[in-house]
Amino acid sequence: MSPSQVLDGANRQVFLGTFVHSKSRAELEYMHDTAVYVDEHGVIAKVQKSGSDTVGETLKDLGWDAASVERHVSTEGQFFFPGLIDTHVHASQYPNVGIFGKTTLLDWLEKYTFPLESSLKDLNKARRVYSACVRRTLAHGTTTAAYYATTDVAATNLLADLCLKMGQRAFVGRVSMDNPDLCPDYYRDESAQASAELTEQTIQHIQKADPDYEIVSPIVTPRFAPSCTSEAMHHLSALQRKHDLPLQTHVSENKGEIALVASMFPDSTSYADVYDRHGLLTPRTILAHAVHLTDAEADVVAARGAKVSHCACSNSSLTSGAARVRWLWGKGIEVGLGTDMSGGYSSSVLEAARQAALVSRHVAMGEEGGDGHKLTVDEVLYLATKGGAICVGLEDKIGGFEEGKHWDAQLIGMRTVGSGEGEDGEGEGESEDSNVDLFGWEDWEERMAKWLYGGDDRNTKKVWVKGRLVHSRWGSDRQTK
Amino acid sequence: MSPSQVLDGANRQVFLGTFVHSKSRAELEYMHDTAVYVDEHGVIAKVQKSGSDTVGETLKDLGWDAASVERHVSTEGQFFFPGLIDTHVHASQYPNVGIFGKTTLLDWLEKYTFPLESSLKDLNKARRVYSACVRRTLAHGTTTAAYYATTDVAATNLLADLCLKMGQRAFVGRVSMDNPDLCPDYYRDESAQASAELTEQTIQHIQKADPDYEIVSPIVTPRFAPSCTSEAMHHLSALQRKHDLPLQTHVSENKGEIALVASMFPDSTSYADVYDRHGLLTPRTILAHAVHLTDAEADVVAARGAKVSHCACSNSSLTSGAARVRWLWGKGIEVGLGTDMSGGYSSSVLEAARQAALVSRHVAMGEEGGDGHKLTVDEVLYLATKGGAICVGLEDKIGGFEEGKHWDAQLIGMRTVGSGEGEDGEGEGESEDSNVDLFGWEDWEERMAKWLYGGDDRNTKKVWVKGRLVHSRWGSDRQTK
Repeated sequence: MSPSQVLDGANRQVFLGTFVHSKSRAELEYMHDTAVYVDEHGVIAKVQKSGSDTVGETLKDLGWDAASVERHVSTEGQFFFPGLIDTHVHASQYPNVGIFGKTTLLDWLEKYTFPLESSLKDLNKARRVYSACVRRTLAHGTTTAAYYATTDVAATNLLADLCLKMGQRAFVGRVSMDNPDLCPDYYRDESAQASAELTEQTIQHIQKADPDYEIVSPIVTPRFAPSCTSEAMHHLSALQRKHDLPLQTHVSENKGEIALVASMFPDSTSYADVYDRHGLLTPRTILAHAVHLTDAEADVVAARGAKVSHCACSNSSLTSGAARVRWLWGKGIEVGLGTDMSGGYSSSVLEAARQAALVSRHVAMGEEGGDGHKLTVDEVLYLATKGGAICVGLEDKIGGFEEGKHWDAQLIGMRTVGSGEGEDGEGEGESEDSNVDLFGWEDWEERMAKWLYGGDDRNTKKVWVKGRLVHSRWGSDRQTK
Repeated sequence: MSPSQVLDGANRQVFLGTFVHSKSRAELEYMHDTAVYVDEHGVIAKVQKSGSDTVGETLKDLGWDAASVERHVSTEGQFFFPGLIDTHVHASQYPNVGIFGKTTLLDWLEKYTFPLESSLKDLNKARRVYSACVRRTLAHGTTTAAYYATTDVAATNLLADLCLKMGQRAFVGRVSMDNPDLCPDYYRDESAQASAELTEQTIQHIQKADPDYEIVSPIVTPRFAPSCTSEAMHHLSALQRKHDLPLQTHVSENKGEIALVASMFPDSTSYADVYDRHGLLTPRTILAHAVHLTDAEADVVAARGAKVSHCACSNSSLTSGAARVRWLWGKGIEVGLGTDMSGGYSSSVLEAARQAALVSRHVAMGEEGGDGHKLTVDEVLYLATKGGAICVGLEDKIGGFEEGKHWDAQLIGMRTVGSGEGEDGEGEGESEDSNVDLFGWEDWEERMAKWLYGGDDRNTKKVWVKGRLVHSRWGSDRQTK
């Protein structure tokens, strides 16, 4: 496949019907009878609200040949929604989703995680796991993912190649971990120098495959402070600056981990301070978790412009704690959502949004008068799209339906139940499989709530990245390109 | 349809393969190469562990004609599991799943719940809603449900008829609520007397339809203390004793509700005490929620032998609190799971089990050294089956695969992902739709964890109640009988 095939949608397209996206953190915007024009590079050339009747004229204005333009229509009850953005996900842990027992972070790493990750140096196994992961997350409507791979260069490069081939926008990070105090002998970089050099190799590979990082970009990935020597963190910081790359790591997930960091870095005043002293807090940094940040830590994170990936499902599953999104916002920190599989048991960003809503309620319940912590449907869907876009530094390209942005989108559909009058009460729409049942009287806000709380990959009918169709599903005809 | 068709599986059947059920609260039992013989009444005649090779002989011993016995085999990776038991669910609220906004209990009732419930006096609407609800919950593997209907007699009777016809074991309760201080004018019983009389009418209807309550049973249902006058509760208690029926209500869900009860019943020492003084705490009583019970309340609940339906999903969604299952167990109280839709956003008991695991972690996180509160995969699946059976008083009939119990069961299957070597990496098993991907190396404990945390109705291939097939799904061929 040539780069142009990968990078361009090839045909000009017009999308017609209902579009829903975030107008602000607090509010979704519903655009009905709307036409969105996407050019041959997958870029939105024009958004015409209430413009579905004037397509012919607009095509003329754009100078596009009507005969060669593909048309896609959302039918009754369907809507176009921005592709979901997973700001923290371990592709290498996909086989372990749901498998965490009663562990918490540190024993979970040792018992379940390091053995699996290490085994992916077998490239056949890596291909099987990564293919399944990308296919699955595309089916969930994840158009952009910030991936942790493993320490292995070849397997990491393979993940980048698969994302490029399957059309998923991705940040692919080789996991750097060289500290023998925490990392097992069978799974760690040989030295701080090696940590940097091996990462450089994956950067070179991805640069060659996608020179402008149109679809796939490298991301510098020190696993987390306890697994990295100070020297390695300095090297990785230098690498980040040299190539002007995004960087991702974990912070303040679990109390045991925080105590460990304090003991390992006695000169630092806090966990966040460890990263700050190593130059790892930058506007391009994605910090996963940030559950137990102190005020002072949040202030330094905000001052450096670093972002937070909120991983609600993982934090509940591993008994890590409950991060406070509204508090982070109040500190001036931008937040996106991470599935953090397999700390989180689901690879779906929609599930991550659902869990973010629930966890915000647990935060509320933990504080007298804490109701202000609760997140609404609109707010968690913002986190899953525009919040995520800011988090990964692509807010100019993805996350919403504005002119000039790329067409990273999905078509959502939910069936309407029958009248119940027939022999078995099934209606016409029910030949379509769906976990969500609409009754037809729901307003749009209610439909969005039903999708958020009950929806799954069955409702994600089609998925596009940069104008290219990368997944489609009609009835039982699932297909991932 | 004649009662015998409804009540009997008609054919003798043998089920072969892997069976998983609860040996104890703490432990699932895995029975491989096992044969389970189900007689023409849907009762398990014999369980032969490692007995899949000697079916012919066993049939001879049983005196069953081999030619007329239906055989069902769980193929590689599949297993039979007991049907799930929903001990608290509002059938009438099915259209509202996911719709709760930022409300808590009392404003949620007023804003979303009462208007919908009241509208089901339109029997066409009720038929549509109840058909969809029963079909959906059967698809989720719910073989027994303790339903709240509405105040309307005809609609409540219709729900009972539909359960009987569609073959779902059910307790169907007409909702009693006569207190004008809480209940709106448009939706309440006219008097305490009416509360009892209307309930009696539904009891008579169900007695006629299913005289031995083999599939459907009435259940006395005072909504909750604030919605009932003292007089109505006394009447309903008398009705419960007269007919020796189960009884269901809500207790101690939300702090505002508890304060309301204290103000409405100043002579009672606690919420539980209100019920106790009205004779509503019995061994046949199912109390939903019990989130904020005091020690003294739990002691009286335990002393009366009343049971608790734990509604984790609802309690998180409505910001009610986090019930402590292990604490209830420690008090000697039996616990089952309730979806409590639409307080809970899902009609799936598997989701209720998942949420019970998560909520137990939030309980753990709320207490210094609270790790003991965490529930395991085995424990939440116990709650969903044997715990639920005890809760609804059917522990001799359902919840596991013991001889003499009824065949209320489901066949679970999860696909195995392909090698990833093909053009798009799809393997053979992937024509089957599933949210869970197995890689083939998982042991049985890991498979159960993946099912619990990632499974949905797509994994529930077939469902039986009392030997009768009531739902089946093969690939895209969904069917509910």
